[in-house]
Amino acid sequence: MPLGLLTDFYQLTMAAGYFQAAKTSERATFELFVRKLPHNRNFILAAGLAQAVEYLLDLRFTSGEIDYLRSLPQFRHTSPEFFEMLAGLRFTGDLFAVPEGTPMFAGEPFLTLRAPLVEAQIAETYLLSTIGFQSLIATKAARVVKAALGREVVEFGTRRAHSPEAGVLAARAAFIGGCAGTSNAEAGLRYQLPVFGTASHAWVMSFATEREAFEQLQRLLRENTVYLIDTYDTLEGARRAAALGPPLWGVRLDSGNLVELTPAVRAILDRAGLRDAKIMATGDLNEFKIHELVAAGVPVDLFGVGTELSTSADAPSLGVVYKMVEMDSPNEDRRYTLKLSEDKATLPGAKQVFRYADHDLLARSSECPACPGGNGRLDTAVEALLHPVILQGRLIEPLPTASQIRQHAAECLGKLPSPCHSLFESHAWRVQVSSELEALDAQVRRGAAR
Amino acid sequence: MPLGLLTDFYQLTMAAGYFQAAKTSERATFELFVRKLPHNRNFILAAGLAQAVEYLLDLRFTSGEIDYLRSLPQFRHTSPEFFEMLAGLRFTGDLFAVPEGTPMFAGEPFLTLRAPLVEAQIAETYLLSTIGFQSLIATKAARVVKAALGREVVEFGTRRAHSPEAGVLAARAAFIGGCAGTSNAEAGLRYQLPVFGTASHAWVMSFATEREAFEQLQRLLRENTVYLIDTYDTLEGARRAAALGPPLWGVRLDSGNLVELTPAVRAILDRAGLRDAKIMATGDLNEFKIHELVAAGVPVDLFGVGTELSTSADAPSLGVVYKMVEMDSPNEDRRYTLKLSEDKATLPGAKQVFRYADHDLLARSSECPACPGGNGRLDTAVEALLHPVILQGRLIEPLPTASQIRQHAAECLGKLPSPCHSLFESHAWRVQVSSELEALDAQVRRGAAR
Repeated sequence: MPLGLLTDFYQLTMAAGYFQAAKTSERATFELFVRKLPHNRNFILAAGLAQAVEYLLDLRFTSGEIDYLRSLPQFRHTSPEFFEMLAGLRFTGDLFAVPEGTPMFAGEPFLTLRAPLVEAQIAETYLLSTIGFQSLIATKAARVVKAALGREVVEFGTRRAHSPEAGVLAARAAFIGGCAGTSNAEAGLRYQLPVFGTASHAWVMSFATEREAFEQLQRLLRENTVYLIDTYDTLEGARRAAALGPPLWGVRLDSGNLVELTPAVRAILDRAGLRDAKIMATGDLNEFKIHELVAAGVPVDLFGVGTELSTSADAPSLGVVYKMVEMDSPNEDRRYTLKLSEDKATLPGAKQVFRYADHDLLARSSECPACPGGNGRLDTAVEALLHPVILQGRLIEPLPTASQIRQHAAECLGKLPSPCHSLFESHAWRVQVSSELEALDAQVRRGAAR
Repeated sequence: MPLGLLTDFYQLTMAAGYFQAAKTSERATFELFVRKLPHNRNFILAAGLAQAVEYLLDLRFTSGEIDYLRSLPQFRHTSPEFFEMLAGLRFTGDLFAVPEGTPMFAGEPFLTLRAPLVEAQIAETYLLSTIGFQSLIATKAARVVKAALGREVVEFGTRRAHSPEAGVLAARAAFIGGCAGTSNAEAGLRYQLPVFGTASHAWVMSFATEREAFEQLQRLLRENTVYLIDTYDTLEGARRAAALGPPLWGVRLDSGNLVELTPAVRAILDRAGLRDAKIMATGDLNEFKIHELVAAGVPVDLFGVGTELSTSADAPSLGVVYKMVEMDSPNEDRRYTLKLSEDKATLPGAKQVFRYADHDLLARSSECPACPGGNGRLDTAVEALLHPVILQGRLIEPLPTASQIRQHAAECLGKLPSPCHSLFESHAWRVQVSSELEALDAQVRRGAAR
């Protein structure tokens, strides 16, 4: 799939401008980070790097795309050589990134991209969108999973995701955030995720009686059968399911007062000797409702969460930005760049994030502030989060699978102090700025006052 | 692109179940509608039909997808004939839909799909996602455009959209809702939308001085030049832009207090004789902020709106559902179906929506309640909204272009009474249910009480 045009148009006019200004040999360093954590979020779980890498490795322009650009009024005065350059454009730069599944805080780079200016500029839009979106969903999933206190959570939200493709990516991100699987079959195949789901209300309605619908489902799925029992009357549905006996996995409720209904359903199943049959609950759930249900002790084994998870409904966007921090020109000293705009100021220079047990240190990438006694080695309790991923346009090692990332996320989340996991209270993890980085900032600000 | 698996997994287990239960010759009728309008919305502008049609016409399963399904535990007991059927599956049904750009209300079908049960079931997830999402964004766009009171609005949100592909579709939907264009270059090519955007802060920062950045931009873009003036100091930036003189389109502000800054910028441009130079404002805008800015009389000619528009941030999901309303079996009378679940009850039978000047009538599809004097002709002031689009798997006529849809939306929106356009007040357009439809509902409810 051609991806070159999947960017903001101004990236392309700027690319033409860099070409015209003979800046194609200049290399820029950009960092992608979250300016401010959204409402109700004490961390952001990084996700979407695999798709960002795929994009960078595949980036190119087809001749049809280039013809389209040539036809636009904005490119009327652009030299033909620019379009020739675009036809041959490939990503040749370096990418450093934190592993997917790492909890991140405001101002910390999720990735650092160093590349010829044109390449770095064109990539901005796609990187922001894919990393911002998946990180948003992975974070929401972590909250929902936390609320479920060990009961499994499955992502069911494709139908309400922002486009079918967003549904596939939401499934991946939700799995990284701790979900047990997804209802999205394409995501199941593409990312090797467990897939869940058996039948909807339409299944029940397509048969003349609920009983016949249940019998046919059991014949098909046997031990994997999940009866949806609320199409007509939930308790009546539970009795019909119980009457059929094993094999079955269990039943699903998609409406009604779960605090009242689920114990009654449990009792019906138990009286029929179906103590191993499970109860699944779905229908407009989120972390707050699940928290309440779990606190009320509902006998629910598995929660299916759709809309609120796959759209991160209470915080549907992430203030993720991509800012230039350095410029290297063949005939000049490195320039450190920053933005002074009101409320949107950024810190100059490429950075590294060092994670300690109780805080992070945001430092210059050239620093090794964590080396005790200056022996050049990192304290083993300290981790440098940004790692090389692509060097000179080549992926340096295979990326982890979704399962490996999910495991990494669980380990990282396990190390965060419990206030960070609060569903209700905000808690600021301490992110300290190194004195070298502060000094660079002060120096560049003085120089920028022109 | 193979699309078969881009669905909820339970659609596929149900498909296997229908096959097993010898229900493949049964035809189902499903309707897609919004159960309840979201907060702050008095209508939903239908959008996404073109992508829904594309999906139905392209729907198929690759052998790799079928091999994947065979490998899953849920399909362990499924007969090989089912997978053979799946390999040959194409959409052979009928689709009726309201034209994109039509304002819709709760309970009214955006589309009616009549097809063999398996096909109708598999299509559910994709149809809900693509129509729900684009309708959400088109509706948000209509609000933002309304707030701008004639000033142009451009969609700038791809970087915060829920995946890059969602950004492309959001651009299309926003254009339908009344935006003048988009920053998304791919959407520009794919849907022939006007594209906007010239340079970012990174452009300015990549040059040693702001002045050099501006000069290079003007050299490239001439009459299309838009200087971004807030990287270092907005008024200083405005003076630098003014000093360069024509040609230019104008300047852009992306931060700061627009009520204070834009008149000052206007004065700087005017004093330099640049009365035709325009001012564009961007940066975390939405319909409420634009309403305030316009009320304050800011001299802004064009608003760029990103995050809030492309995620419909104040209402990031739409309660769009797809419900079976009829079942036709070769050896039985037609069955009318409904759902009785608490709070989720639906009306049975295929429907038509008749739009009058001051209300809608939701009727049975077989009714012609709008024929005055029973002469079999519709009153010309009344419109039947659902039209045939696909019959027996074939598109009956070319779909309108995005521009045509945008024009249709503008006409439809112009006919809605002004309370429907309020940004703040909720107003319920009257949707009356015909007596025939009510009678059918009562009859089916009696029968469903089993």
